[in-house]
Amino acid sequence: MFGFSFRPRKANSAQTAKERLQILLAHERGSGSSPEYLPILQKEILEVVRRHLKVADDAVDIRLERGDDLSSLEINIEVPTGGASTATQN
Amino acid sequence: MFGFSFRPRKANSAQTAKERLQILLAHERGSGSSPEYLPILQKEILEVVRRHLKVADDAVDIRLERGDDLSSLEINIEVPTGGASTATQN
Repeated sequence: MFGFSFRPRKANSAQTAKERLQILLAHERGSGSSPEYLPILQKEILEVVRRHLKVADDAVDIRLERGDDLSSLEINIEVPTGGASTATQN
Repeated sequence: MFGFSFRPRKANSAQTAKERLQILLAHERGSGSSPEYLPILQKEILEVVRRHLKVADDAVDIRLERGDDLSSLEINIEVPTGGASTATQN
C-alpha cells in the first residue's frame, strides 16, 4: 500500500468529549499530472457529509497541500454530539 | 488535533509508477453513537470521486473498521495514469 497509514493520535481529555470526523485524502501521481479536481472534490465531499451529519460552517477546518507527486487534502469537522443522525435540515 | 496523522509510507519502486488516490475517514464519537452512515458515505464519496477520475471497479480497495469510540474507513483507488482528467464516461 502507498500513501498514508492510520496512526491514532492520543486525544487529550478536553478533546475526547467532542465528536469529530476527519477525512484525509492523498493523491499520488505517477505522471506528474496535477489534480486540479481536489478543491472541487473537497466541496463535493463536504456536501455528501452534510447529508449525514449536521455540520456548522465554522466547524470545518480544511488543509490542501500540493507537492510535485503528492497532493493531500485534510478535512476536520467537529460534529455536535449526537449530530451523526441523518441531518434533517442544513 | 485528534484522529490521524499523515505518515507517508515509503512506496517501493514498482508502486511509484502508478497513480493512486487514498481516502481515510475517521469518526471519533463522544457519545458512543454508532455512525451507521459510514457505509453509505463510502458509496457516495466513491460516486463523487468517479466524477473526476476514471475508476475501475476492481481498482478500489475498501476497509471499514468500527470500534467503540472510533470508526474508520479507508478507500484505496488505483487510478489509470492520466486518469485524473474529468471522467467522461464511467
